[in-house]
Amino acid sequence: MKSPYQNIKEACYEANMQLPALDLVVYTFGNVSQVDREKEVFAIKPSGVPYEELQVSDIVVVDFDNQLVEGKMRPSSDTKTHAFLYKSWDKIGGISHTHATYSVAWAQAQMDIPNFGTTHADHLTADIPCAPPMSDELIQGDYEHMTGQQIIDCFESKGLSYEEVEMVLLGNHGPFSWGKSAEKAVYNSKVMEELARMAFLTLQINPKAPRLKEALVNKHYERKHGKNAYYGQK
Amino acid sequence: MKSPYQNIKEACYEANMQLPALDLVVYTFGNVSQVDREKEVFAIKPSGVPYEELQVSDIVVVDFDNQLVEGKMRPSSDTKTHAFLYKSWDKIGGISHTHATYSVAWAQAQMDIPNFGTTHADHLTADIPCAPPMSDELIQGDYEHMTGQQIIDCFESKGLSYEEVEMVLLGNHGPFSWGKSAEKAVYNSKVMEELARMAFLTLQINPKAPRLKEALVNKHYERKHGKNAYYGQK
Amino acid sequence: MKSPYQNIKEACYEANMQLPALDLVVYTFGNVSQVDREKEVFAIKPSGVPYEELQVSDIVVVDFDNQLVEGKMRPSSDTKTHAFLYKSWDKIGGISHTHATYSVAWAQAQMDIPNFGTTHADHLTADIPCAPPMSDELIQGDYEHMTGQQIIDCFESKGLSYEEVEMVLLGNHGPFSWGKSAEKAVYNSKVMEELARMAFLTLQINPKAPRLKEALVNKHYERKHGKNAYYGQK
Amino acid sequence: MKSPYQNIKEACYEANMQLPALDLVVYTFGNVSQVDREKEVFAIKPSGVPYEELQVSDIVVVDFDNQLVEGKMRPSSDTKTHAFLYKSWDKIGGISHTHATYSVAWAQAQMDIPNFGTTHADHLTADIPCAPPMSDELIQGDYEHMTGQQIIDCFESKGLSYEEVEMVLLGNHGPFSWGKSAEKAVYNSKVMEELARMAFLTLQINPKAPRLKEALVNKHYERKHGKNAYYGQK
Repeated sequence: MKSPYQNIKEACYEANMQLPALDLVVYTFGNVSQVDREKEVFAIKPSGVPYEELQVSDIVVVDFDNQLVEGKMRPSSDTKTHAFLYKSWDKIGGISHTHATYSVAWAQAQMDIPNFGTTHADHLTADIPCAPPMSDELIQGDYEHMTGQQIIDCFESKGLSYEEVEMVLLGNHGPFSWGKSAEKAVYNSKVMEELARMAFLTLQINPKAPRLKEALVNKHYERKHGKNAYYGQK
Repeated sequence: MKSPYQNIKEACYEANMQLPALDLVVYTFGNVSQVDREKEVFAIKPSGVPYEELQVSDIVVVDFDNQLVEGKMRPSSDTKTHAFLYKSWDKIGGISHTHATYSVAWAQAQMDIPNFGTTHADHLTADIPCAPPMSDELIQGDYEHMTGQQIIDCFESKGLSYEEVEMVLLGNHGPFSWGKSAEKAVYNSKVMEELARMAFLTLQINPKAPRLKEALVNKHYERKHGKNAYYGQK
Repeated sequence: MKSPYQNIKEACYEANMQLPALDLVVYTFGNVSQVDREKEVFAIKPSGVPYEELQVSDIVVVDFDNQLVEGKMRPSSDTKTHAFLYKSWDKIGGISHTHATYSVAWAQAQMDIPNFGTTHADHLTADIPCAPPMSDELIQGDYEHMTGQQIIDCFESKGLSYEEVEMVLLGNHGPFSWGKSAEKAVYNSKVMEELARMAFLTLQINPKAPRLKEALVNKHYERKHGKNAYYGQK
Repeated sequence: MKSPYQNIKEACYEANMQLPALDLVVYTFGNVSQVDREKEVFAIKPSGVPYEELQVSDIVVVDFDNQLVEGKMRPSSDTKTHAFLYKSWDKIGGISHTHATYSVAWAQAQMDIPNFGTTHADHLTADIPCAPPMSDELIQGDYEHMTGQQIIDCFESKGLSYEEVEMVLLGNHGPFSWGKSAEKAVYNSKVMEELARMAFLTLQINPKAPRLKEALVNKHYERKHGKNAYYGQK
């Protein structure tokens, strides 16, 4: 009998398999999930399974309170972070977490990735925020749950919208991204990695490189995402 | 019935497919066009289509006033820039625009790429110019049209010939290149990316690295492109 | 007749073939070995053989006193280093030595790789130690034997456990790693290379980047390796 | 009828095809030659031919005075440099010239590549020398011939042996390497590129990184190339 979660399991599997294909992870690093909003569950990678062995049937389904719904394997150790984000931000369809090299380097440097050009502005107007490392108290508590909290606190304190800014760095840890689907979340992981690499090189060439001027930030973001967008086919 | 534009559509398609093959773009980034000078039209990539899905029949044909001539899809959002360059510079056969990493980094640093060696001089004698970011007024106007204007202004103010210097950086944006054909334009995109990477590394190793001496600049350029050129088979 | 060492020869072969596949070596660089603790022998790559020509039957078996046990080829020039480590540290199952670029760069810089983030803490709590170059006297003596000694001295002087820290840099030389098997040793070589690259980029972006706070170091190490570990499927 | 030069043409072809396979060149950059010492001729890549179109029958044979001996195509524009080196250094069997990125960057920085570690010492004891750019007078003369002269002058002024040091950088230009065969010359091009990359990273991590101590330089070079060498199978 077919699983009632077959659709999200397949979408989750396909998106996870993109991570090594796009050079965003090695070995078992990283995890992607896909939500089903009606059923209030999400499909996520099992913990510690190498991508080359991963199968659709290994994908685990859990609910927003981290209860196992379907699957024989233990879900990703970051599952609670995903659950917390799905619960808090109700328009997210997928979440991606990688240890992509340049994104991690910025997270370890504990710095926001500045908006230096139109490649960045094509995707978001703000700098990519870097949330500060958690307090010792929170780390000793429910760590992965509080990781989700940390992301949300960062967005609130900076006045950012999760619908516009679909990516974040966790200080000393690495990148999380999201979007309307698991596939879009992975797309954002790859774009963030490219922006991280471009910004790194920009500062190496010119440590005083100016941020992108406001008029260009808005122009590029609007032509792709605004009311009168004219990028793409829809 | 065969399209009267089949030749340029195929040349355009082949050149676009080189962009991901040469690691110059990810996803839907970038666009290449091929002109037909007699018919005064050019073939260009449709907007926002992933390369792995692109087909020859998707290629769009437009005229120099940006009017759609053939095709069902919306042309690249940068079409007006291409049109303006074809109209202004009558010996260009193809144009390529990418978001290649090192080229973008120099554009974001708002710096010309210095001529540091014979790899550079084999292709052009000048530094690769970086056009300054557009004024706010122009950005709010006909943006992509003015992007073409910005390139031409840059060449005029620096006294450069578009027949010798077949590449430019747009400040805070990225690289454009051109040539006798779409294929040659893409070749120039790849060469520019290599030169951008070599110049970046050169300055990291020796921040005081001198520019290539005049005698070598001329020798290498002339042996490949001069009257008595002896590089290649023709 | 089948060799009594067939199992370790195959494990050794498979692990060696991972080195070029994971971009950790070029040409004949590097070597991996797999021990058989009961028989007190280990299987190791023959010296100077290109990976694309390597066969299981080429793998050499030697004992802990460097005596040839099986095989027609000369064993790796680093064999004595492997033998010394197997003899000294009785829970090691495999050893890997590469000339991976970023790891070698840190070794040449003669610096420990700082623990800057959770990718690092997922694998070890300490900085990756860099053993100082050998004294001239020792170099002129039994060099490869003393290389093993140098690693063990480094761990003793820093109070490190080889069971927790499964990797080291040899000053001016390059990385060695180990683990329960040859396969795990190679995994550690790849992880070390990733950590070396991330730490390099971190310091380029922020020369004052702080080390990972103690609470996060412990949290990430414990969730993967501690008593109540919840990463993976076991 | 088979060419009397078939052997060197095939060796030359195979070695040239290694350049793109080893990521040392793009497009038509670079050239490799293979000598026949008895016949006093060498086989070399034709000028400006893309590697993916290159065939054994395209390989050109010329003598040490640059006279065409066999072939329908024009030989590499660097042919005179090869001829001069074969004439001057009678134990060279093959020569390789690339525009590999990190090697070119050091050449453009006009700096020798320091011997920072055992990867370097496994191949040569000296720093990789960077010959100064040619005087204007020589550039205007017989340029490619004088490029060979420039290499030989560099080795004489530094007291280097071309049998031990099989590689050089030409200031503002790029790397040349040689060896007993075209294949070995290409091996040296690849090794030089790795050493160039490692040395670059070493200085980025620690600008005061010390050169490899004399005892280790000698130990590693001798164990691979000395009288009592014990690396490899011969």
